[in-house]
Amino acid sequence: MNNIYLDHNATTALDSRVLALMMPWLETQSGNPTSRHLFGRSARDAIEQARQQVAAACGAYASQVVFTACGTESNNFAIKGISANRIAQQILTSAIEHPCVTRPAQAMAQRGATTQVIGVDTDGKLDIAMLKTQLATPTSLVSVMLANNETGVIQDIAEIAELVRSAGALMHTDAVQGLGKMNVDFSALNVHAMTLSSHKIHGPQGAAALILDKRVDIQPLLHGGGQERGLRSGTENIAAIVGFGAACELAAANSQNFAAHTLALREQLELGLARLSAQLRVTIFGQQAPRLANTSFFAIDAIEGETLVMALDRKNFAVASGSACSSDSSEPSHVLLAMGVAADSARGAVRVSFGASNTAAEVSAFLATLVHEVLRLKQLASIAA
Amino acid sequence: MNNIYLDHNATTALDSRVLALMMPWLETQSGNPTSRHLFGRSARDAIEQARQQVAAACGAYASQVVFTACGTESNNFAIKGISANRIAQQILTSAIEHPCVTRPAQAMAQRGATTQVIGVDTDGKLDIAMLKTQLATPTSLVSVMLANNETGVIQDIAEIAELVRSAGALMHTDAVQGLGKMNVDFSALNVHAMTLSSHKIHGPQGAAALILDKRVDIQPLLHGGGQERGLRSGTENIAAIVGFGAACELAAANSQNFAAHTLALREQLELGLARLSAQLRVTIFGQQAPRLANTSFFAIDAIEGETLVMALDRKNFAVASGSACSSDSSEPSHVLLAMGVAADSARGAVRVSFGASNTAAEVSAFLATLVHEVLRLKQLASIAA
Repeated sequence: MNNIYLDHNATTALDSRVLALMMPWLETQSGNPTSRHLFGRSARDAIEQARQQVAAACGAYASQVVFTACGTESNNFAIKGISANRIAQQILTSAIEHPCVTRPAQAMAQRGATTQVIGVDTDGKLDIAMLKTQLATPTSLVSVMLANNETGVIQDIAEIAELVRSAGALMHTDAVQGLGKMNVDFSALNVHAMTLSSHKIHGPQGAAALILDKRVDIQPLLHGGGQERGLRSGTENIAAIVGFGAACELAAANSQNFAAHTLALREQLELGLARLSAQLRVTIFGQQAPRLANTSFFAIDAIEGETLVMALDRKNFAVASGSACSSDSSEPSHVLLAMGVAADSARGAVRVSFGASNTAAEVSAFLATLVHEVLRLKQLASIAA
Repeated sequence: MNNIYLDHNATTALDSRVLALMMPWLETQSGNPTSRHLFGRSARDAIEQARQQVAAACGAYASQVVFTACGTESNNFAIKGISANRIAQQILTSAIEHPCVTRPAQAMAQRGATTQVIGVDTDGKLDIAMLKTQLATPTSLVSVMLANNETGVIQDIAEIAELVRSAGALMHTDAVQGLGKMNVDFSALNVHAMTLSSHKIHGPQGAAALILDKRVDIQPLLHGGGQERGLRSGTENIAAIVGFGAACELAAANSQNFAAHTLALREQLELGLARLSAQLRVTIFGQQAPRLANTSFFAIDAIEGETLVMALDRKNFAVASGSACSSDSSEPSHVLLAMGVAADSARGAVRVSFGASNTAAEVSAFLATLVHEVLRLKQLASIAA
């Protein structure tokens, strides 16, 4: 049997249509976009076309798109670059942010900033009352992600941004998990800065963007030759940027279909989990909140998540235990702990994140294997006990 | 006639053998290297193989290779990351560094560091006496490039590094122009940190490295999920890293042939320039110093470099006026000004940088066109005057 990939929130396969558009830039073309000769100019034109595509996909102007190399770079750029100019003020992040938001904020503490973390409720939604209280203290920047990578829970960013603006602070959102899975509109979200990433939407690795209100006072993270209007120096990764532009166009055009398709798969999965709960206690995290349609994050009582992920891997199903970027660590998910889930239960968490290519037959096969593996692990545990 | 590319110090075409090795990672594979399932593990293995290849190409250990997205990022990481931990001390750079070294140093001035610039002589070699004088002041970091991107002039990095070490400072070298064109050996160069870049050696854009002595105390530039032993967070660009590894292997294996081949082409070019100097004054910059074999940087009296580059472009020859990364600007080359060249003469500068694919026939064709265009421009100028 082929491997079945159910880990689309970690990364996605490159779309063959996107690759086809990248190939001329990989195969035959060469040219530093800053060079003035023919090779250089044609690279420049390709980048500007991609900038239009990214902008169109997220309700922004092309002039608001700053290309970077990855979502982590965009988040570091936003957090460090904005707070550096208002270093005496605090940075607020949510308790469920990716480490590439929280750790840059912590790094700014060494440079004189203070950081505060805003909690979430048991559904994974931001504690608005706590945010309001914290905003009474002078604040440079608030960063709250649009959709969580583990639970898929979606925050009310426009509403949060309104509070942040009223307090005179700037608002950033990490929207990498939202793009292509839901409508993402920079203007409607009402934020000053927004992170997007290519490899989460079947684009190539190596390209990402910070969508940035041009009035924001920000310091570059990469200083040098002055590319990207001086905001992000470094020779542009042309093929990756061209691919990112094409992937954005496809993702935006298909996001409604994507949501409908993956919602049906998730309902099938979660119905199966509900059936399993006749035998074993199953918890689906964030189920009461608006979630990305493609994401299901659950734990099965007394089954360790990491063990289950490895058992499923041996049966050719790729799923995750918590976020891909923290899976080097065996700590329970910080997202679940923030939601008040007990550490033992959090250690049981397994994430399934569907993509457009997954099918109902794959979900059926997955459920059958899951039940089989869970019962086997349960039996082993009872023998050991 | 086909376009003839003589701008290999700006960027190079991707080698088809390298692309072939990248294709599986673009076409069919997917997997976040941090993930524990099969897809993730195979991505991890590919990255570790590339790490071995990069290390072998530059006399380093694999454990000393930190992958980044571009040379600019590596330089920003080295300069900012090292000086941040010794912020009360000064940073020394040479007067001929790329902006992605000097501007990060200047950016650290906002955080309390001081910066000093070490001059060069008329041949473009570092002023060692001035370096010694400056090293009497407590210094965190000295950054001097191995080979200059404009003139090709090669510095005595091992000797400089010895002085720097004796003063208790750390030594960084930007070696992006050296790799593949000369022997580059991290250990022999005696430095603490060294920047390499993939797209200068027929590898893909989107990958680079900082080779780093593990004992160096450095702060990350990108904080997040903790990839690259916590030194550079962000999902790895697998295809680009695989390509970079392969390109390093080819570059190191062929660097002697490369030097011999391009030296013959440059001698042909500079002989032609010498013949032209019977009619017009021609200056070849850095000609008295050891230079990269592939690079010739010259000016023809009273001919504006930018105008000549555009005239040659119309005749299908791609050359540069100064560094690609500063060609958005019409300022004369800071490298030439540092060498004591008058601004007017510096504005005339044109850089030819050969690659392995260039031929003697191309050099002949280039010389014929160059002479024709120069005489035409000269005539236009005399009519205008």
